[in-house]
Order: sequence, then structure tokens, then C-alpha cells
Amino acid sequence: MTITRRSFLAGAACLGAMKTPLLASALQNSDAAAVSTQLLSGDWEFYRGPLDPRFQVWHSEELVTWQKVSLPHCFNSYDGCDPDIPAYRGDGWYRTRLSVRNPYPNGRTLLHFEGAGQRSEVYLGTERVHDHTGGYDEFMVDITEACARLNKGKDIPLAVLCDNGRDMERMPSDLSDFTLYGGLYRNVWLVYVPAISFEAVHTTVSFEPGKPAHIAVTSRLYAPQQSGTNLDLLVTILDPAGKRIHSKTLQRAAWTGEVELASFQIDTPQLWSPATPQLYRCEVTLESASGKTSATHRFGIRHTRFEEHGPFYLNGERLLLRGTQRHEDHAGYAAATPEEILRKEFALIHAMGANFIRLAHYQQSRLVLDLCDEYGLLVWEEVPWCRSGVVSTLFRQRGLDLMRTMIDQHRNHPSVLFWGLGNEDDWPGEPHGEEHDQIRAYMTELRDLVHKLDPSRYTSFRRCDFAKDIPDVYSPSIWAGWYSGSYVEYRDALEKARKATPYFFHAEWGADSHAGRHAEDADPMLAHILTGHGTAEKGFDYKLTGGTPRMSRDGEWSETYACDLFDWYLQTQESLPWLTGTAQWIFKDFTTPLRVENPVPRVNQKGLTTRDLTPKEGYYVFQSYWAKEPMLRIYGHNWPVRWGKAGQQRLVRIYSNCAEVELWLNGKSLGKKKRTPDDFPCSGLRWDAAFRAGENELRAEGRLGNSLVKDSVRFTYQTTAWSKPAKLSLRTVSDTSDHTTVEARLQDTAGVLCLDSRAVVRFSLAGNGTLLDNLGTPNGSRVVQLYNGRAEISLQHTGAVVAGVHADGMESAFLTLEKTR
Amino acid sequence: MTITRRSFLAGAACLGAMKTPLLASALQNSDAAAVSTQLLSGDWEFYRGPLDPRFQVWHSEELVTWQKVSLPHCFNSYDGCDPDIPAYRGDGWYRTRLSVRNPYPNGRTLLHFEGAGQRSEVYLGTERVHDHTGGYDEFMVDITEACARLNKGKDIPLAVLCDNGRDMERMPSDLSDFTLYGGLYRNVWLVYVPAISFEAVHTTVSFEPGKPAHIAVTSRLYAPQQSGTNLDLLVTILDPAGKRIHSKTLQRAAWTGEVELASFQIDTPQLWSPATPQLYRCEVTLESASGKTSATHRFGIRHTRFEEHGPFYLNGERLLLRGTQRHEDHAGYAAATPEEILRKEFALIHAMGANFIRLAHYQQSRLVLDLCDEYGLLVWEEVPWCRSGVVSTLFRQRGLDLMRTMIDQHRNHPSVLFWGLGNEDDWPGEPHGEEHDQIRAYMTELRDLVHKLDPSRYTSFRRCDFAKDIPDVYSPSIWAGWYSGSYVEYRDALEKARKATPYFFHAEWGADSHAGRHAEDADPMLAHILTGHGTAEKGFDYKLTGGTPRMSRDGEWSETYACDLFDWYLQTQESLPWLTGTAQWIFKDFTTPLRVENPVPRVNQKGLTTRDLTPKEGYYVFQSYWAKEPMLRIYGHNWPVRWGKAGQQRLVRIYSNCAEVELWLNGKSLGKKKRTPDDFPCSGLRWDAAFRAGENELRAEGRLGNSLVKDSVRFTYQTTAWSKPAKLSLRTVSDTSDHTTVEARLQDTAGVLCLDSRAVVRFSLAGNGTLLDNLGTPNGSRVVQLYNGRAEISLQHTGAVVAGVHADGMESAFLTLEKTR
Repeated sequence: MTITRRSFLAGAACLGAMKTPLLASALQNSDAAAVSTQLLSGDWEFYRGPLDPRFQVWHSEELVTWQKVSLPHCFNSYDGCDPDIPAYRGDGWYRTRLSVRNPYPNGRTLLHFEGAGQRSEVYLGTERVHDHTGGYDEFMVDITEACARLNKGKDIPLAVLCDNGRDMERMPSDLSDFTLYGGLYRNVWLVYVPAISFEAVHTTVSFEPGKPAHIAVTSRLYAPQQSGTNLDLLVTILDPAGKRIHSKTLQRAAWTGEVELASFQIDTPQLWSPATPQLYRCEVTLESASGKTSATHRFGIRHTRFEEHGPFYLNGERLLLRGTQRHEDHAGYAAATPEEILRKEFALIHAMGANFIRLAHYQQSRLVLDLCDEYGLLVWEEVPWCRSGVVSTLFRQRGLDLMRTMIDQHRNHPSVLFWGLGNEDDWPGEPHGEEHDQIRAYMTELRDLVHKLDPSRYTSFRRCDFAKDIPDVYSPSIWAGWYSGSYVEYRDALEKARKATPYFFHAEWGADSHAGRHAEDADPMLAHILTGHGTAEKGFDYKLTGGTPRMSRDGEWSETYACDLFDWYLQTQESLPWLTGTAQWIFKDFTTPLRVENPVPRVNQKGLTTRDLTPKEGYYVFQSYWAKEPMLRIYGHNWPVRWGKAGQQRLVRIYSNCAEVELWLNGKSLGKKKRTPDDFPCSGLRWDAAFRAGENELRAEGRLGNSLVKDSVRFTYQTTAWSKPAKLSLRTVSDTSDHTTVEARLQDTAGVLCLDSRAVVRFSLAGNGTLLDNLGTPNGSRVVQLYNGRAEISLQHTGAVVAGVHADGMESAFLTLEKTR
Repeated sequence: MTITRRSFLAGAACLGAMKTPLLASALQNSDAAAVSTQLLSGDWEFYRGPLDPRFQVWHSEELVTWQKVSLPHCFNSYDGCDPDIPAYRGDGWYRTRLSVRNPYPNGRTLLHFEGAGQRSEVYLGTERVHDHTGGYDEFMVDITEACARLNKGKDIPLAVLCDNGRDMERMPSDLSDFTLYGGLYRNVWLVYVPAISFEAVHTTVSFEPGKPAHIAVTSRLYAPQQSGTNLDLLVTILDPAGKRIHSKTLQRAAWTGEVELASFQIDTPQLWSPATPQLYRCEVTLESASGKTSATHRFGIRHTRFEEHGPFYLNGERLLLRGTQRHEDHAGYAAATPEEILRKEFALIHAMGANFIRLAHYQQSRLVLDLCDEYGLLVWEEVPWCRSGVVSTLFRQRGLDLMRTMIDQHRNHPSVLFWGLGNEDDWPGEPHGEEHDQIRAYMTELRDLVHKLDPSRYTSFRRCDFAKDIPDVYSPSIWAGWYSGSYVEYRDALEKARKATPYFFHAEWGADSHAGRHAEDADPMLAHILTGHGTAEKGFDYKLTGGTPRMSRDGEWSETYACDLFDWYLQTQESLPWLTGTAQWIFKDFTTPLRVENPVPRVNQKGLTTRDLTPKEGYYVFQSYWAKEPMLRIYGHNWPVRWGKAGQQRLVRIYSNCAEVELWLNGKSLGKKKRTPDDFPCSGLRWDAAFRAGENELRAEGRLGNSLVKDSVRFTYQTTAWSKPAKLSLRTVSDTSDHTTVEARLQDTAGVLCLDSRAVVRFSLAGNGTLLDNLGTPNGSRVVQLYNGRAEISLQHTGAVVAGVHADGMESAFLTLEKTR
């Protein structure tokens, strides 16, 4: 049996929603829309704390200090990874003043929120005009009447409460293993539309390989005070080159519900795929006595199919889904990641060679979906039903609403492959987690809703074995080599899962790594890992205490071990012709309230990049398997000191997709090696080399086709063995006009660097300066585990300051930094 | 016309309340009660933040860290005066497990809260058994049935939410000029009583000077499941020596409402007064088939009278009310001040000679009232209707309930003179503050309620001129020499107020002073103060910006100026035979959200002591006027460096109640002076002296009757003038096994101390140590204005640390502190 989703809905920029209409007329790039939408980014004030909206939001100058902010803004931008104090959970207030000048006679004035965490109340003056529960979906607030009641167009007082306090009836669960951020962390728009405009426009595509594609354009109107009006409509389709290939004009009276406006046939469609993400465009214009409005969006044409027990086919050809995952989180911004950083993140994901991404664990921003469309990334997007049972009727209803909204808002994106029903609703100690029948029933309800609303997509679920038969595609937990077992068990685990699951996909695998920590030898823990006892993450395996030996609890968390695990997994995946695909957990480190004891406190460090998007070495392992562009990486760019006995052979790893690579040590060739996929590690691109004591340089060149790629690293080779750690020291390692970076180092009594030390150190500062901390990175946290006996932090200062560092059982070290330029 | 409150209610330990019964049977010192009450002080856990009570309070180990605490506990113990971050407003959760073993068959099991800020929810397991709004009144929760539903006696899970978030329908207003603390900051008790017990016992005393006193004992029962049962009752009265002077036995069926049980006549009563605070005792025992219980409380006999336009009479004799005021606030504890500190505070107030206290601005703890009874302090206690209008029907009802509860719980204390209706409900920008008619109507409603519930007391109100005719006794705002005008205008201001107000009392006067800051010369601002333009605090006069010149905004905030102001005021008050009395604002420095820019940020510094109860020099000015015990204080114990030209005459101030005082400088007598009340300042006890450069010693002796009192101070006299401040330095000034104290000093380029510098400095620390800050004291705040060019802070450390200090426009200074012992 094959499950195929042929008739799929496509398009972009669709704003429709069930409960809180999002207008397709809004936020278009057309000239008409340019005058009627305004990004409300500047001129906001923010206060983090409770205020009584009936008075205090507008009369609180005596009481509280409002901070000038621009949107997007997350009020946990720094505290999600504070080592000492858990992230703030509670109320945050935003306020501004609007100048409302609706150009349409009797037009509607709307506020459009692209997402706000986690519950919002919208006030005009002291009037509460809207409530919204849900931290990740878009919503629209019609303020037309409320503005009229205030009886003025200029200087309309707008206040928004964002509340990320705890509420077990709200998704995601407060037990979630990521921070439930608060704030107006996505765009907010002021939108003017005529009295009649579009609530939603959807483009539905029916396509099978080798046949023409059929396009149907449907729409819902937004006309709260109108009915029966005559409308003139124009529907236009443009091909990926921007050429108009179809158009249709029609007249009809204003309608309710979603109706078809036009349908077209495209005889030789240009297909959307990771290799060729071709995007068509649909424009719909509406004109009535109330005015003219239009809606423009993109769509794509493609066909997907899952073979029973694999593999997966796109447009009739087998495609191995090579995936990673992401949270909306970034150092210094948290959920309010600026657009340029988001674009850089997707450029990196694309450059790594991924063709799939799971948007964990909630509906992500419209720009994310646009980038997935453009980069040809197939998407698993899910509702945030994670780590809880079915808490209550309200909880259940909210989840259904979130699914409805997500599909309505994102179904037109050709990138979407899965609508995820949830994650890990079998967690120990979760609210109502023992009521398996309830969980099964609710998962079924969600699945059936998806099948009804969007028959073109598959439902998916990760880790809930007692309900694994419910979603179309299921991922069990396989963490061989991290939460249990060894990575050598991975192939077996996959084969078993394939047999046990008709439509199997492997979501979530990987390993934590503390960027900058490297190993010369195999992780000593490897000798203690039992195999043959399963590879799943169970119970409280994620914790660093209790349970049986496992790499996650007992290993070194080195980049070296993570690279080996990635290497093994990727090699395995590429070798299995039946495999549908996988999604590594996770592209970028992110914060979680649950893991305060991690090397970077409260940061999940399974990222291929640190939380500031700096690639770890593991990124290049993926690239060596997946990327089409030639690449070559000598392992250990952030490994300044290697160690061993004089003359000892040390391993040099190279990750590359080149067929042949040559390596030079201190100018002398160590010979060429050919890439051999099943020669672990590094697909055979590894050398044993005897470094000289002191400075060394490695240089490598590789060829792929006609392209030559090069890399080089410099490092010190330490031949003196160290004894017990005895003494911390601090030194400046860089000094820019913006900030100074200092490095703590741990030495033994003889002054030899203790290169395997993982001691936890705490940085401090006296004088007029600021540590640049709470970034959730190994060089941006004031409490951090050493990596190879060292750790960095940056700071800004005015005049002289004294930086300090200390660790349990050790004298503090200090460094005086003189006046900055 | 005279207003007299003759028939007054007296007694103590009354627990009755309207909505949430407080059982008079509980918390007695009798043997019977000892087995049936248990102070729940240890074994609590606390978490500051929101939790969902339906699950998370009992299943949150993954999520949050619970802190072990003992009660009383305030969750703003340190942050009310944090210089950088406003005090937390929101939820705090407490949880514990009770072992419930009720000794009475079918007895009732109760939780008794002496007060919790500011709104509470009580849970047994996940069942919400009680809500309470009000941060300062006592309440009782009957958990009998809820315990039974949990079906176990041991290990009953108890959780309490305390919420001090903002709510404009709750008193006190969030605009209040003091911190609305959160937490279980008063005692919590587990109480067992029989099925029938006392809800309240009141003792009403009728007395006129020269006649016998009449005592009526009334009571309400607490019997939620009983009626008609026969009860045996015994009422006993003991005189202040503990001798039984009356008793009565009676039998009657269980009743509802408050009924009289017995009445007695005392022919020659021992009167309660500040000089002789005689306390009688009333014991009532109840026995029924359900068991035996008793209630014991104290009462007093006294008579009060206000003559129109003054003065005030107690027991037929004129008494000048010499008062101060207090908040429940202490360094490091905030509202959870330990009992021993509270007792020390009242011992200091008593030793100062006060006979009156205003408990600002809310019902205070039962121990406070007991101490007022014992020390003979007449009391103004008030409901927290401050700085707001009549916000809503709910707000109004809550205020009436708080008044009812306060009177029911505290009316038996003989110390209570005034039931205050509120404070400053004419504040600019307050919610509904413009609706004067509403404010008048509500004040009238409160007044009439008091007159109905307790005809023996006077109602009072401070500062609301448009409603000044409503309370029995009224205080306008007079702040001559601080918020407007000069202190020389004080007598005129009093005379004017006397004429304008039939029953006038002066509540709130004083000056801020930054402990440790002293002046050699008159405050330079004095020359710029306009007189004849009023003496009230109006509008935003309290702020340090805007408005016209005034000492509060422009003066030095020295202890010297404050002492002069106190001296002037006290001399004036003592000279006016018609004056009813006054209450200085305030005995101890306390925190406020409104005054972040103060020398100690967010601390109202008008206290006669710092927030840790260290007397400032002003304390002794009061003592010199009011205390009966002989005292003598050379001004400037905390003034280590005085200054002037070589040979210049400098003023030595002595505050003393001695008739004659002799002063020696460096061993040489400067002669004797007689105390002359109208010789300002220091009642003539002042000398001009020429100090020698360097070390000096002043020694003084005074006599009152046969008592000899002595004092001495040592200080340095600096004759070198300083120029512009140029350089900060740090030095250790003391070092104990517990902590190290360091001092920052500011010098000019020549190294001369800048003794008039008021620069704001910030302390910091690198290494393994902690600043002992956020205490709200001049030597316990990491941000603080210098006092005479210096400031101290203490710290604790392990191993070496580096302390730093910096100020705007100046290089930081550092001090390395080596390993502690």
C-alpha cells in the first residue's frame, strides 16, 4: 500500500483563520497594499510586570519605568539561559499610540499580529477589544468600532498584554523542554481594508507526475457589515518567471464561507522540489463600491508519496529526506530573532544540504515558511501538543483550533509535507499522561481534522508508542549512542522501526556537544555503554542524574564524539535505499528551563551551531554528506591546543565531499586519501600524524569535479602531561572597539594547562562594565563548564575594570583591564 | 463642643471576623490550647512565580526549584530596594505537608493566617478551599471537610498562593508610596477546636473618670454543624496583678450572633494610660458534649476626650499625643520582620518617649497591638484606602469589609484611639480621584460604619481637604520646611489648621535624612526657600524634579538639617497648650516603589532610624523632648571627619533632657550650659569650639535629678580645603569572621577628602563573594549617594575577591581582599 497526497493545497501569504480572521488583502507587496499597511515596529514602550489595564497601563509613570523598545521584542531575550534565575514567566505590557487614517470610506481598521507569546489581550485605551490564546499563530483584531468609540483618529492608545505565565490548559505544556517565551516577538501591522475584502485566498493544486496540473482558487470574504453587494473579481496566475499564464474576470454578489473563484489547467507545470523550488504566483483583485483590494500569494506544484515501509517519493522520484529541526530562538533575541539572522540561518541550513526541516514544536513565522518554499525544504510543522495528556475540554478545543488555524494560514506553502499532531505525549509525570485512551482519542480527532481540512498532507507524530498507529507517519524514539545504547546499534534500530511501523520516519537524533571541547582519544565512557538494551529515550533519561550509564549522562559532550555519532548516523542513512528520511535534533542550540546543569546552563546543546549561529564542527560532517557544492573542513578550527606524547601519532579528521583530499603538516605532504563512504570515521579522510611540540599547521586540498577547495588550521601541540588542576588564570584574547574578550584557563601547580578539565567556572566583574552574558553560548555565559581547560567571555567597560573567575575549591583569578580607547 | 468616646470596647486576642471567622478559642496561652494549636513555621517550600495549581504545584520538580523557607516569609525581602530592578509583583507559592490529628471528636480543623500579602488562595492538594483578598487582616480557613475528602490524616498537602500583582480594585492602591509586599509574612497556625467553640469574644468597657467601670463580655460562637446544644460557660475577670476579681457561670443553648454572656462592675479601676498601661484579663470557658475550649484576652479601662479646637484628654487629664508612625518593613526581612526585631523596635519607640503611634497604612500584626497595649502607646490604625478614589463597587465593598474585620479583630486593644478611614485620597492622577462626591460619600459610609460598630473610638483621616468635615478628627498636610516653605512657618501653620478644623491632629511631618551625612554650615538651600506660600505637600511635590524650590528637592538631606527641623517642630508642639498631638513621619526608613532616585534608591529616608533600626541622630532630638529617663547625646556619632579653617569656631550640638550640661574638648572644659526650651537649636545646649587639626575628642556630662549621664565622640578635624572631586578609593574599615566592611572615599587631585560630595557610587565585586546589599540602608546598598564624601558596604567572600566602586565621570577604584580566615 502507498499513501499519496495528490490533491494538495498550495499558495502563500494566506492569512485566513477560523476564529480570528486574518485578511488575505493585508500585507501584500502590491502598490495598492503599500498605502494600507504599516509595520508597527518603532515607538513602543514596554514594562515587564503586572499592571491593571483599567488604569495603570496609561497612568503608571509614578509606578513603573517604561522601556522604549522596537518590535519584534521578546521579554525573555536574555533570561532564558540565566544560570541563576529561571526565565521570567508572567505579564509583559506593550503600549504605543496609533495614528489611524483609513483611506477607505467605511473601511475596516485592523491590527495583524504574526504571533505573540503566549496569551494576549489587546486594549484600545482601557477597552479590552481582543483576547488571544496561543503563542505561535497569527491573529487579526478589528479595531474599527473601538477607534470610533474613542472618537479620534490620531493618537489612539494601543496596549497589548503578553502573558507567558503557567497555564496547564494552554499548549505547549509548561513541562516542555524549551522556553515558553513571552512578548510581541513577531511583526505587528496596522492594516486598512475596504468594507469588503478577502479573509483568505487558497490555491489548491491537483497534480500527478506526467499529467497536467489543475489549479483551483478559493476565497473567503471579510465583510462584517456587508452582504449582497456586487463584486468585480480578477484572478491571475503567473508562472515562476513572472509571466501571466491565466486570468479570469467574474462578477458575483458577496458570499459567505469559502468558495471557488476560478480553476485553471497547467499543461506542463514547472515542478517544485528541493533542487528546483519553482514558485507560481496567484493574484486576486476585488472591487466593490467600498473600494478595491487585492491579494497576492505564491504556490507550487509537486506530488508526494510514501511507499509502505519506505521510501518516500517526490514528483515520482525517490527522495531521502535529509532533515534538521529548529526552534525560534537566538542569542540575545530569543523568539524575536531579526529577519536578517533568520535568513542567515536558512542560508546555512541550505548550504549544509538539507532538504527537510521540522519546525519544532509549534507554528513558526510566515517568513520561515516562505524561506522553506524558496530553499526547497520540505516541512514538518506541528501543533504544540507536547509533553502532556488531554488536560481538559478547553485544552482539547484549543489544540483543535490551533491545528485549524495553522492549516488555514500555512496550507498554501508547497514546502509543507507533514502536519504534526504533537510530540512525546508519553512523558513521565505529565498532566493526565496516564490516560492513554484519552490521548489516543484526541490524537485521532486531530488526525481526522487534518484529513478533512487538508487531504493533500500527511499527519505525523513523534514518540508516543501506544498511539503509533494513529498518525499517517510515525517516528519512535531512537537515540542510539546518546540517551541509550551505542551508535553502532543505529542500523538495527532503524530496521526494527521499519518493520514495526508501516510509514516510518526518524525524527530527532543527535548528541549534545559543548562547542570548543575536543577529544584526542575515544570518550572513556564508550567502554561502559551496554548494547542490546534498546536505543530509545525513556523516562527521565534526559537528566544528568539517575538511571543507567549512557553517553548523555556520562560522556564528555565533546564535539569530537558528536561528529563521530553524526558521521555514523549519516553513513547509515545514506546506505539504506528504503529509508524515507530523518531529522537531526537540532540545528541551533536553544534554551530550556529543564537543563540548568548543562555545560552552558539551561541550554540544549545538541545544535549544529551554537545559539549565536556559529557552526560547530558537526555542521561540516552533515555538509560532507549532503552538500552538492564542494567543501572541505579540517576538524578542530576552535581547538587551539592539541596534546599527546612527543612523536605520538594523532588523528587528523577531514570532513569533505571531495573524491580525493591531500593533507600537509607543517608544509610536508602526508599523502592523498580517497573518500570511501563506508570507511568510518570521516569516510576514510583521516590521517595519523606526529605533531611537533609547539606550533603546527595543517593544510588540506580537495577536488570535486573541476573545483578545488582548501582549508588550514594552526594549533599548539602540548607534550607535557598535566596533573591535578590547581590554578585558574585570566588573560585577554581579543580587544575590539566594541568589547574585550577574556579567557579563563586552568593549570596544574606546574602551570601546565589541564586540557581535559570540565570544571564549572563563574565569571564576575568589578568596576564600570558589563559581562556580555546570558547569551546561551560557551563564550557568552557567566557560568560555564570549561572546554579543554579554558572558557571565554566578552565584556564592555568604561575605564578600568577587574574581571574575575572562580570555581569550586579553587582560588579566584583576576585580570585588570585598563581604560578602553 | 466636646467629642467623647466613653463606652469603649476593650480586650485582646479577639479573633472574630465577619466573612472569615477567626476563632477566639484558638491561639490562647492556656494549657488546653497548647495541645490544639501548632505554629506552622518550618518545613515549607517556596517558589516565586506562576504555577498552575491544578497540577504544577505538586508536580513541578522538573520545572522549578523549590526553596526551603520558614515562616514568616516575605518574597520581597530584598528586592523592595533593589536599585536596578523594581520589586517583584506577582505570584509566590508556598507548600508543606500537614499531619492532622484533631484531638476533638468531630472537632474542626482550621488554618489561621495572621496576614498574607496581598491576595491568597489556599489549596489542599489541588482543591481550592479558600480565597482571601487583603494583605493585612487575619483570616481563618476551615479545612475539616477538605481533609476528610483527602481521606488521610497524615501528609495532607497544603499549598498557598500569595499574589501581590497589581489590581486596582484591591486596597492599598498600587500607587501607594510604600511597597505592597507579597508572601506569608505573618504567622500561620494549625488549630483544632471542638465542634462548638468561640468565634469572637469582646469585652466592652464603659467608664468615666471618678466613677466605677462597667464591663460587658460578649461572644459569637463558631459551630458550623451544631445548633441547640447545651453549653456550660464560665466567665472570669482578673485584675492587672492577676487576681481573680469577678466570675460567673452560666448555662445556655448554642446561639447565633454576638450576645452578652456577663457584665461586671469594677468600683476602683486601675486605669490604662501611657504612664500606667494597666491590663485586665478576661477568661471565658465553654464546655459542651463536643469538648471544652476557652478564650483568654486582655483589656484596659480608660477614657478619652477631644475638646473642640483642642486639646486632648486621657482619663480626665490633658495629654499631648507625642507620636511617630511605622510600616511593617525591615532590612533583609521586609514585611516578615522577626518578633525579636519588632520587640526591639517598640522598645526604642518607648525609650524615645512616644505615647502615640500611627500604624501606616493598614491593619498591623496582633503583636504590634499587644506591644502598644503594654507600652502605653495610643494607636491610629487605618484601612488601606490610600491614594485612590472609589474605584468600583467591589473596591468599596472590600474597604468596608477590611474596616469591619479590623475593628472586630483589634477593637479590644485599649491602645486603639483612632480608626483611620484612609490617607491622601486627593492625590494627583489617582484612579477616580477627580470624583470628589464619590470620595466624600464613601468616606461617610466608612465613618458611619465605624460609629455603628465601635462607638467608643474616633474616626480619623489625613489629607483630603475636600472631605475634611467627614472624619471625627482630621489632619491636613503640613510639611513646613520640607515639601514647601520653611520650618519657621510651622507655628502659624498649626494655628491656621486649628482654626480651620474643629478636631485637628497633625499626622505626618518630618524630613528625609541620609544617615552619615552631616553639615558644618546651614543648608545652602535655606536661602532660597520662599515663605508665605503655604506649607502643604501638594501635587507631585514629593518628586525630586519639577515644581518650585523646596528642601525636599533641593536640600542636602543631611542629618543636621533634619535635626534642626525636628528640634524646631518639637519645641513648637510642646509650647502649644491647645495642641492635641502629632505623629512624625516615620520611625524607620522603609521601601517605596516611587523613589528610585533617593540617596538610598527606593527608600523613604524620613526614618528616625535606618531600615535596620540603627538610630539616626534625629532619634535623640525626640528623646531630648519626650523621654523621662535622663539622656544626653553629642551630635555626630557617625561623623568621623569634621572640617573648617584652622581655629575656626565650629558648632557642637548636644541633645539632652538634662537641666545642665558640661562639655569638654580634648580634656578641657568649654563650660556648662542650661537647657532653655525656647533657645533654638538644641534648647541652648550648643557650644562654639575651635577644634585642632587632626584627632579631637568631645566629652559631655549632664544631670537630671540625681542621675548623671555622659557621652563622648572622637573625630578628625580636616583643615585642608578640597577642590573638584577627582578620585575614588576603597579601603577596609572592619573585618569580622562573618563579613568585611569596605569604605569608598572621594578625594580631589591632591588627595583631600571631598567632604560635601553627594556623588552616586556603585559597588561591585569580582571573585567568589557576595555584596551584602539590597538592605535599604546607606551602608547596605550597592548604589548609594556618598555621605560626606564616603560610603560603606559589607561583603562576604571565600578566598580572594576584588571589590570595585565607580561613579559617573570617574575612574573605578578597586580593593583586593585576600583569603578570609
